[in-house]
Amino acid sequence: MTTADRWLLPDGMDEVLPPQATRMEELRRTLLNLYDCWGYDQVMPPAAEFLDSLLTGTGSDLALQTFKIVDQLSGRTLGVSADVTPQVARMDAHSLRRPGPARLCYCTTVLRAQADQYQGGRSPVQVGVELFGHADIQADLEVLRLALASLRVAGAEEVHLALGHIGLYRSLVEAADLDVQAERGIFSALALKSPGELQVQLETHVRDPDLANMLASLVELHGGDEIFETAREVFSKAPKPVITALDQLETLCRGIQAAYPEVELYFDLAELRGYRYHTGMVFSAYVPGYGQALVKGGRYDNTGQAFGRARPATGFSMDLKLLVSLAEQAPPLNGIWAPAEDTPGAETSSLARAIETLRRSGERVVQALPGQQDDPETYRCNRRLVRMGDDWQVSPLK
Amino acid sequence: MTTADRWLLPDGMDEVLPPQATRMEELRRTLLNLYDCWGYDQVMPPAAEFLDSLLTGTGSDLALQTFKIVDQLSGRTLGVSADVTPQVARMDAHSLRRPGPARLCYCTTVLRAQADQYQGGRSPVQVGVELFGHADIQADLEVLRLALASLRVAGAEEVHLALGHIGLYRSLVEAADLDVQAERGIFSALALKSPGELQVQLETHVRDPDLANMLASLVELHGGDEIFETAREVFSKAPKPVITALDQLETLCRGIQAAYPEVELYFDLAELRGYRYHTGMVFSAYVPGYGQALVKGGRYDNTGQAFGRARPATGFSMDLKLLVSLAEQAPPLNGIWAPAEDTPGAETSSLARAIETLRRSGERVVQALPGQQDDPETYRCNRRLVRMGDDWQVSPLK
Repeated sequence: MTTADRWLLPDGMDEVLPPQATRMEELRRTLLNLYDCWGYDQVMPPAAEFLDSLLTGTGSDLALQTFKIVDQLSGRTLGVSADVTPQVARMDAHSLRRPGPARLCYCTTVLRAQADQYQGGRSPVQVGVELFGHADIQADLEVLRLALASLRVAGAEEVHLALGHIGLYRSLVEAADLDVQAERGIFSALALKSPGELQVQLETHVRDPDLANMLASLVELHGGDEIFETAREVFSKAPKPVITALDQLETLCRGIQAAYPEVELYFDLAELRGYRYHTGMVFSAYVPGYGQALVKGGRYDNTGQAFGRARPATGFSMDLKLLVSLAEQAPPLNGIWAPAEDTPGAETSSLARAIETLRRSGERVVQALPGQQDDPETYRCNRRLVRMGDDWQVSPLK
Repeated sequence: MTTADRWLLPDGMDEVLPPQATRMEELRRTLLNLYDCWGYDQVMPPAAEFLDSLLTGTGSDLALQTFKIVDQLSGRTLGVSADVTPQVARMDAHSLRRPGPARLCYCTTVLRAQADQYQGGRSPVQVGVELFGHADIQADLEVLRLALASLRVAGAEEVHLALGHIGLYRSLVEAADLDVQAERGIFSALALKSPGELQVQLETHVRDPDLANMLASLVELHGGDEIFETAREVFSKAPKPVITALDQLETLCRGIQAAYPEVELYFDLAELRGYRYHTGMVFSAYVPGYGQALVKGGRYDNTGQAFGRARPATGFSMDLKLLVSLAEQAPPLNGIWAPAEDTPGAETSSLARAIETLRRSGERVVQALPGQQDDPETYRCNRRLVRMGDDWQVSPLK
């Protein structure tokens, strides 16, 4: 192995250097402060857990994404966290056990065994919120508004929000009382957005013509808020849960239009992302120039059940590494360059006192080391400390 | 596996719940702000790297502590970071390549395969600084002062600082020109602090009586700053590098006494912690009530060499999880409880506007969800939003 090889990093596991790391730290703080202002309490899930616990109640996608390690202490298999959401669900169900709604947030690095199909890395810094213990659409609306507030503070200007509701499809297939095989066929056709294939599946498996028509129309129902009028007609004879899902989606639509009139809304009633996991509304937020969603979220009421405590849950997550690129700023040039101490160890000198005072007031003071070349700008300094008689004063770089 | 088992966490891999997580986040910010004020730039090393790269230039201890995973993309073995310092050394040598001194800091979770012998967990949040590219003792003094400043802002009141210098022992054995076997025997006796065993080893292996006496006296030279007088006599005929090491240690002593007169200093000239890794001064800071050092640091000039660029280096690290317990405070009770919205989706109501304004001013406003029981204190609220005619006002909880 050559020296150069030794320095290479695994694909998708990148390091963050100055000044990008400082910008990420700032955005982390801005987001966690925002969540605190909305009443969300921070939690820090473990970086690794027993695999059984990590994958409980989640789909097989996560199993493929999770790095496995053998725990020398227990002899059991651990998983390195690849998604924080199931961990926070466990913390809500088992560790916190709050009787009422619990609002939680987090910001932590996760690792993924495989690169996803888009530009995402394998070591995202996952940041997000979860709201447990409340099934009302108002909880979903709060989470959705907070997702849009997150994008706003991160510097996103043009946001496209795609919304769907797993309850529509789920209620229709439940009403059609299908066997597993039939349901899978319809699901695949719908996921492929293929009207022809969907028609074949529906003719084969769904006897009730009304249900078949409604299922067939899902693939057509996408677009702006004008789809609600069509949907109301199409689902006029639909089972109650379908109407409820439609009502919920429209409540979200009106809520977002009132709070974020500038956000472009897109509805897709055939959206089935995370079908095994999600139970209600699902959403993705896009910003032009990014090939993937910057925020993904939705309702997932069933996860808690696997932990022995079924709790309604809704939330979203983002990758801080991706989000930070929304607002590219020049690194701040705001430090003060101080000369090296003449007499080594003179920690009580007037220079040492001047530096101490400036630092206490929050100033960045970079002190030259003995013999160090004068190079203030490399160290993000735009001023210098100069001697004035017995005292020291801050002056601009000449 | 029972449900309860599923909730268990691996030994030493703990989760952090509210309000402890918020306190950790605050201390993280306080420390990173402190390091910024001293001119240290934040970096974020990857959570996993190729094992070769991670273990280059470090001792075998780290190999045992590092979890190994197989990378499906490259087929190579990755290590989950167990210590950030070698990663930052790689970043300095390869990624940053700054010609002058580089001051870097970090705060990141690492994982350890084994529990260490003290109370430390296996998932510490490692926070620390590294100063590369300057060999002068002033660099060590800066790092040492910053370590003590870190303990101060974390709330430590009584600090004991233990200082040693690897150069003393290293220069003496180099002068004695010993074979590997002989050096190992003397090293073990010294590490055991066993004068009898040391005497036997020295009589067997060291022909020069002056060098033998000096090596023998190392084990006696520990205590307060009075040891320097004795050491000056003992090492009066010592090789030049021994005198230099002694001078450096005394410079640190005077520097710390001037800047931190309240810190109790303890010197141990037979301190050999991290001998294969460290090259100059080494230190550990203790606080009464903690069975282990809260800060460990020292000089390690040889690490960069393994990466093809030998750079002097000095720094320290701490575990944020341990550090946060220095100042136990009650969780802040400073939020405002707001009622649920009467009309769902009324995002332009006067209530919604009042909440928005308060949050923008940095207030924590927790809004009840429809039907939620009134329980403001559980959500860290000490005030509530009440209707006053058409407007809303903040009132104390009655």
